[in-house]
Amino acid sequence: MAITHLKLSCPDRVGLLAALSGFMARFGGNLVEVHQFTDNLHRWFFTRMEIESLQVDLETLRAAFEPLAKELGAEWTLRSAEARRKMIVLVSKQGHCLADLLWRWRSGELACDIPCVISNHEDYRAFVEREGLEFRHIPIDSKDKAAGFEQMAAIFREQSPDLVVLARYMQVLPAAFCAEFHGKILNIHHSFLPSFVGANPYQRAYERGVKLIGATCHYATAELDAGPIIDQEVTRIEHFHSPDDLVRIGRDCERLALARGVRWSLSDRVLLYGNRAVVFRH
Amino acid sequence: MAITHLKLSCPDRVGLLAALSGFMARFGGNLVEVHQFTDNLHRWFFTRMEIESLQVDLETLRAAFEPLAKELGAEWTLRSAEARRKMIVLVSKQGHCLADLLWRWRSGELACDIPCVISNHEDYRAFVEREGLEFRHIPIDSKDKAAGFEQMAAIFREQSPDLVVLARYMQVLPAAFCAEFHGKILNIHHSFLPSFVGANPYQRAYERGVKLIGATCHYATAELDAGPIIDQEVTRIEHFHSPDDLVRIGRDCERLALARGVRWSLSDRVLLYGNRAVVFRH
Amino acid sequence: MAITHLKLSCPDRVGLLAALSGFMARFGGNLVEVHQFTDNLHRWFFTRMEIESLQVDLETLRAAFEPLAKELGAEWTLRSAEARRKMIVLVSKQGHCLADLLWRWRSGELACDIPCVISNHEDYRAFVEREGLEFRHIPIDSKDKAAGFEQMAAIFREQSPDLVVLARYMQVLPAAFCAEFHGKILNIHHSFLPSFVGANPYQRAYERGVKLIGATCHYATAELDAGPIIDQEVTRIEHFHSPDDLVRIGRDCERLALARGVRWSLSDRVLLYGNRAVVFRH
Amino acid sequence: MAITHLKLSCPDRVGLLAALSGFMARFGGNLVEVHQFTDNLHRWFFTRMEIESLQVDLETLRAAFEPLAKELGAEWTLRSAEARRKMIVLVSKQGHCLADLLWRWRSGELACDIPCVISNHEDYRAFVEREGLEFRHIPIDSKDKAAGFEQMAAIFREQSPDLVVLARYMQVLPAAFCAEFHGKILNIHHSFLPSFVGANPYQRAYERGVKLIGATCHYATAELDAGPIIDQEVTRIEHFHSPDDLVRIGRDCERLALARGVRWSLSDRVLLYGNRAVVFRH
Repeated sequence: MAITHLKLSCPDRVGLLAALSGFMARFGGNLVEVHQFTDNLHRWFFTRMEIESLQVDLETLRAAFEPLAKELGAEWTLRSAEARRKMIVLVSKQGHCLADLLWRWRSGELACDIPCVISNHEDYRAFVEREGLEFRHIPIDSKDKAAGFEQMAAIFREQSPDLVVLARYMQVLPAAFCAEFHGKILNIHHSFLPSFVGANPYQRAYERGVKLIGATCHYATAELDAGPIIDQEVTRIEHFHSPDDLVRIGRDCERLALARGVRWSLSDRVLLYGNRAVVFRH
Repeated sequence: MAITHLKLSCPDRVGLLAALSGFMARFGGNLVEVHQFTDNLHRWFFTRMEIESLQVDLETLRAAFEPLAKELGAEWTLRSAEARRKMIVLVSKQGHCLADLLWRWRSGELACDIPCVISNHEDYRAFVEREGLEFRHIPIDSKDKAAGFEQMAAIFREQSPDLVVLARYMQVLPAAFCAEFHGKILNIHHSFLPSFVGANPYQRAYERGVKLIGATCHYATAELDAGPIIDQEVTRIEHFHSPDDLVRIGRDCERLALARGVRWSLSDRVLLYGNRAVVFRH
Repeated sequence: MAITHLKLSCPDRVGLLAALSGFMARFGGNLVEVHQFTDNLHRWFFTRMEIESLQVDLETLRAAFEPLAKELGAEWTLRSAEARRKMIVLVSKQGHCLADLLWRWRSGELACDIPCVISNHEDYRAFVEREGLEFRHIPIDSKDKAAGFEQMAAIFREQSPDLVVLARYMQVLPAAFCAEFHGKILNIHHSFLPSFVGANPYQRAYERGVKLIGATCHYATAELDAGPIIDQEVTRIEHFHSPDDLVRIGRDCERLALARGVRWSLSDRVLLYGNRAVVFRH
Repeated sequence: MAITHLKLSCPDRVGLLAALSGFMARFGGNLVEVHQFTDNLHRWFFTRMEIESLQVDLETLRAAFEPLAKELGAEWTLRSAEARRKMIVLVSKQGHCLADLLWRWRSGELACDIPCVISNHEDYRAFVEREGLEFRHIPIDSKDKAAGFEQMAAIFREQSPDLVVLARYMQVLPAAFCAEFHGKILNIHHSFLPSFVGANPYQRAYERGVKLIGATCHYATAELDAGPIIDQEVTRIEHFHSPDDLVRIGRDCERLALARGVRWSLSDRVLLYGNRAVVFRH
């Protein structure tokens, strides 16, 4: 049966859930999954609803919802669960996250279309193309980085992806680029943030002598590795693990944290506000 | 500000959440935390709401709610968050769970009154009494177990505790006893259920050579270690850990799983149905 | 620099480590990693050594070691770390473990050769062949299972693999088959053993209402899912996860537990005794 | 049977383990547990041995070992496992770690004597004294911190504790104090280091929006929260957890990480070198 997703945030007030669930009920909607969260500090309300058995089409529903949302001062989306999301993946020379995402996509875990995979290197062309996907090589010239990112932005503007995934894409994105695609770019950082922001986190984790390493899936913002965190994963290490061991072991953390972040983002489970993320996990 | 908890389950149908949240809104109630779950297999609906700023007292609210609940065919409770729950703790000769619960209780993590601690042994009398709590010694005679449990049941009937916690209480409860206090008796079993039901789970875990051990917090039913599971906790072990090591390491799993189960039960976060538990965690 | 692995178990007695490390020192061997474990209950000694800078070749070393090992009543192997292990992978219709293993193998995490991948179905032929590996389809006829397993045994006898990995191979192996290849066949079971031995563990985990699910990597023996456990992995689930969700979430546990078990087996880190496994993890 | 612990580190060279295990064998010593680690980067060797059935007393053994240790350029200790360690605990106004340690000590998990508990506040006097332990109140005057620490140092000099545990002791130690008792002072920091060094880590974790919080057990050095890490523990949090929730949930991480760190330190399982810790876990 067709499922519709409502994702909404607005200032808190009495009767919000009643208004929203009442609205859906008037159109025959049955709420099969509802999440609600109120940030008491900022008096802000967040919800996600999965609605089935609606008696109207999505366009009609959206039009009917518009005045209510306006009155509430809400940010919101209403989408069909079945509508395919569009995801573009960026990769550099470490392919484990790319491989993991493509396997999950192929096996049906990630419901989306992938218009292309973009890389600043040629290493994964064959790997991507044998999946029947388009591979775009966009070199980033260290003397003129803007050119490469402008080329990339043009693709994004044309494709309007729901999600851009930095699957160990090792270039710092220009601030304007982050701003233009704000809330669309999901990164996996290979440390337990805010520990080890920036380059070589495994080497630095080794030097600090930590006993757990991790990975962080977060939305990219202009400030490096400082955007809203969606998920984190850690694993125990010991004194006998070399920096190379950390790189190897950490890959499993990266894969898991990124895959969950992608899945939740694609299924309308992530709401950003300020530098925090509400994640209605499943 | 006063907070009220609604806990409710009923057959699923369109408009349930609208009806419930609308009801609360009519009494000025603001929903600060809402959990909802629909079991699609059984078409059954579960919710828990934290409601503030209600303009009526609890008795009036309950009376007004009664007809709606009846119409929905609902099981429900409406309770003040501030009303103190009553918890009775049972212990035998292993005191780590008792000590942990009393520490959490003393420090304010567990909002409840403890009318007494009951044991089939005298070991923890001084420990309990120095906390200013009543200690009741009820021996269980192996030739006439019924007598001890009848004495205990009398206390329960008099005290009407919201929760009875078996904090490593090492006697099997009679079936009639479980039936009478169904949904009130929380047990901690020192294995990862359904592995190692019954006696000596750590020894058996050692013999099986498992690489993780755990503990399970569940509601007691007539069938041993088979009641609805609230929480489980595991920890990694290795070949060099002896059965005694497992006992020692496992204690931390037991403490954590039991403490969470108690906390969630006391704060109206657990709904039992059949042999499953909906746990609206926090 | 060349590294040699000694793996040895024998009855415990005074001076064992001195004898073994002294032996290696006489040949110029430097011990870069040593693990030792004594099972005090059975007075049995286990060790694994990584030795570098040996001044003799492996054949000479083995010949010199033979009399000492005999005197100790030891089971042992001495192998070059660089010598490629041979691993055969078996798969049925669930390909996630196969895909994970091949990715790790391709990326250098698993140092071995893979003479072939065997399946009772044709589903993964293309997937395997595009990795440049041989795919062998050996159907298992439900009316004459012995024929298929005899064909498989012939391959094993010819190839002498160090390890046979059941990567979600969904056929029960005949007892004689398990006996012939004892200590060579590594299985991944999709539950936290000994919970849910046998078929449909996720469905049964759902029905029992557990709050953690897991996977177990163990050596196959004649008794189903009862062989020595190498590693286990768990992950938290909640009441809202359907049996299908458990299948999806559990795949990550399976991948991780199997990959570690394979890696440790290939690098001579697993010593079986009775139904237990000493795993000198790294 | 009497057990002796050897803890030793020295420059790596061929034959080290042979020399050490040979030495013990000459005195009839049976090695019941041996750990060895070689840091290949710095060519440094670390070992810990549990030795039983030695035919000489500890003084004789130490005297015999002295020349060998000197030749190896080793740092080492040889101690009887049965000899009681001395541990002094420091606490301020958060008592959960203190309570946890005292419970474990009382139940036999931590084999040590506790000459006194020291606090800059009076809050836990009754709690400590009812355990039969001495409570010392040493106020830290914000205008003359040196005076309080000098008083404390005098106690340490008199008592020569093997371990001083900062069980949520909320004063920064003077550098000279850290230097004098280097390698003796174990701290629990309430964050996953190196994230959130310094004050209010839970509040800052909340503001950063992390999805896991943790605690770190480390040796105190002059630089705040930068000493060698012994153990870390994390737990998952969600968007709905307030800073107060993090404080509550984090306490369990603190208790576990500190208890393990104390246990390993007391049983000669921790070897510090530079800013790293070799921890031969059990």
